Amino acid sequence: MTEADSFVRSIIRTAGESPIRAMMGLAGEAGMISLAGGHPDTQQLPRDWLVEAASTVLGQLRHSDLQYGATEGLAALRDSVCALLLQRRIKAEPGDLIITTGSQQGMSLLANAVLDPGDAIAMAPLNYPAAMQCARYAGARIVTLDAGGEGLGEVARAAPMRVKAVYVVPNFANPTGHLMPTEARLRLLEDAQRLGILIVEDDPYGDLWFDRAPPDSLYAMNQMQRIGATVVYLSSFSKTVMPALRLGLLCAPPAIRHAVKLVKQAADVHSGLLEQRILDAMLRSGKLTGHLDSIRATYRLKARTMVEALRTMAENHLSFREPSGGMFVWAQLEGDARHVAGADWFAFGRTHRVLVLPGQAFAADGRSNGYIRLTFANPGVEEIRAGIKRLVAGLNAESTRIAAHAAN
Amino acid sequence: MTEADSFVRSIIRTAGESPIRAMMGLAGEAGMISLAGGHPDTQQLPRDWLVEAASTVLGQLRHSDLQYGATEGLAALRDSVCALLLQRRIKAEPGDLIITTGSQQGMSLLANAVLDPGDAIAMAPLNYPAAMQCARYAGARIVTLDAGGEGLGEVARAAPMRVKAVYVVPNFANPTGHLMPTEARLRLLEDAQRLGILIVEDDPYGDLWFDRAPPDSLYAMNQMQRIGATVVYLSSFSKTVMPALRLGLLCAPPAIRHAVKLVKQAADVHSGLLEQRILDAMLRSGKLTGHLDSIRATYRLKARTMVEALRTMAENHLSFREPSGGMFVWAQLEGDARHVAGADWFAFGRTHRVLVLPGQAFAADGRSNGYIRLTFANPGVEEIRAGIKRLVAGLNAESTRIAAHAAN
Repeated sequence: MTEADSFVRSIIRTAGESPIRAMMGLAGEAGMISLAGGHPDTQQLPRDWLVEAASTVLGQLRHSDLQYGATEGLAALRDSVCALLLQRRIKAEPGDLIITTGSQQGMSLLANAVLDPGDAIAMAPLNYPAAMQCARYAGARIVTLDAGGEGLGEVARAAPMRVKAVYVVPNFANPTGHLMPTEARLRLLEDAQRLGILIVEDDPYGDLWFDRAPPDSLYAMNQMQRIGATVVYLSSFSKTVMPALRLGLLCAPPAIRHAVKLVKQAADVHSGLLEQRILDAMLRSGKLTGHLDSIRATYRLKARTMVEALRTMAENHLSFREPSGGMFVWAQLEGDARHVAGADWFAFGRTHRVLVLPGQAFAADGRSNGYIRLTFANPGVEEIRAGIKRLVAGLNAESTRIAAHAAN
Repeated sequence: MTEADSFVRSIIRTAGESPIRAMMGLAGEAGMISLAGGHPDTQQLPRDWLVEAASTVLGQLRHSDLQYGATEGLAALRDSVCALLLQRRIKAEPGDLIITTGSQQGMSLLANAVLDPGDAIAMAPLNYPAAMQCARYAGARIVTLDAGGEGLGEVARAAPMRVKAVYVVPNFANPTGHLMPTEARLRLLEDAQRLGILIVEDDPYGDLWFDRAPPDSLYAMNQMQRIGATVVYLSSFSKTVMPALRLGLLCAPPAIRHAVKLVKQAADVHSGLLEQRILDAMLRSGKLTGHLDSIRATYRLKARTMVEALRTMAENHLSFREPSGGMFVWAQLEGDARHVAGADWFAFGRTHRVLVLPGQAFAADGRSNGYIRLTFANPGVEEIRAGIKRLVAGLNAESTRIAAHAAN
């Protein structure tokens, strides 16, 4: 440990880098096929739409547009976002919203606004790692829900300390792709209301459905059915428009919205205003609907390609549920491939030229669980087929090697 | 307290809004003169330079530029920043840097990377409020240095708990405008090295000198004289280029830089990439030097205008030290005007149509201290004169009113 090391909080020092972010370096190597990252389809990123909107914005730019802005975000963009939310059956006023530097910031601000050291937050046993880091860096403890991420009542009864909040991704969750059924949403709202637990609903993937839109969000159900739970809704433009702009939104009751605003004043004052103006111009152009249709069609095709490739090539190696939206297939290692679960998946990637993420990276308990996450959103159709082929070859090679090792 | 209120951390609930941000609403009223906010001169904000650079960036934009990027920031921009830092005699490699969402985020990330609940951080008794909020939201205690913000040795000896870090703004500090002398910098470095205290050097104003550049930064002195202290350097493009892009930088030794990167992964993944590209194109155009010359000339003129107006009109009301750079005059209420110190300065602003910030807003102990902060950077030359005139009239009116009240 160096002198500088000694200044770092032990909770950070022991955290380690996000395995997803760490895998990105390897993904850039020539000839590598990555089924690992949660990146949208690069060819679907709307360059021309962005350039057109940005040109309009630049043409109208005033000196005063380059000053500091409101912490809540650009008023015009919050207006546009309200119109979008209404399509998701969420009634919101611009004053209910805070524009965040991606929905990742929404989670981070919220953790800092509501979680005191020692507080407990309930989550599914499998989550996006950075969501768990937000809670841990705030000094909170994570208690896990049942596998579906739905059974709040039992957790609250079993948890030795009061559970303050529950974090859920009801639509096409990362990494499992799980879509929470309507009844489970209703039960979660009622449990949370009765037990006085804050619901943090993270919805970056809700627009990425294949055949039918997901059920109403927890936020909308709570509103329409007057359930009386306290719900914060987070969403992002990273998966639907583009990740580079780092823009997301948070919609919350006044007291929590105000607390988040105070935390954001200290976190970054406000999100970048030029990018907010450009996103607003993009949304106002009316092109989002067509763009979403195109993304959905592409992701549906790619998901089916991956499912088909897995069924044809990996029947004896992997079992999975066909996704109905989102970006991921969550696959369980079967037969001899089970022995590969605890493998070094970086080394696997370097050797077999295909990257996947081990289930362990998403586990709240940090344990190996016999699953891997496969992304179909970013790779091309041919890459998906070739990637699954390499994955199967790799699983065969590694399981044979492990078996030989065990026999010696 | 509403149901939603009960979820908010008590440290946030009791914090209250930043008085600077709160004053912004009032500043927009017709006929109001604001000497309150820390905003740069709006007319100096480089719209044309931005539009030109942005057009170049948009013309070259590839689909892949819209994907997720590195948490540390765009490699090209980090290169450009290294060249700038070299002009400040700081030797840095791109790998030493993290691009932040404004230097405010640098402070916030650092607080989350190094401060555990209960840790003590030393600061001047007067600071930018959001810097203090970062420490408080992390659960840290603030211990204060002497008035110059320099006497670390004594604080560390007197503090009942170990002081982990010291936060300093050596150049034209907010709100005092204080410029830390070379000897004090050296002493702070030596004290911090001997006592094992991390130095957080925040330098948003260093380029805004009037007649001569400030002494070497703590980071540069530590490097050149091999003092062996651990120093993190934060800076911002908000005061030198524009606030709207929200871009700043953090330069730190590897262990701390790595910890900050982990915290940033959870905070916002990375800062906006389009804005990073545009700033990089602006810096590469070679126009920054001329732009800084122009800002310095304007701020020098405005500072002298304010000093002249204060000397002519407010001799009996305010005493101050003439600033040698930065954006602020820090003035002590004198004579009868002293009675106005504890006034409601929002009400004062509404009545007398001039906004200033009370010294209390910047006080680590939150107490009224008989000072006000006046900004000369944002208002025009005529507004500065008219603003001081209104301020003096207001001080006269209020002190007469208070005296009459006391006599009854």
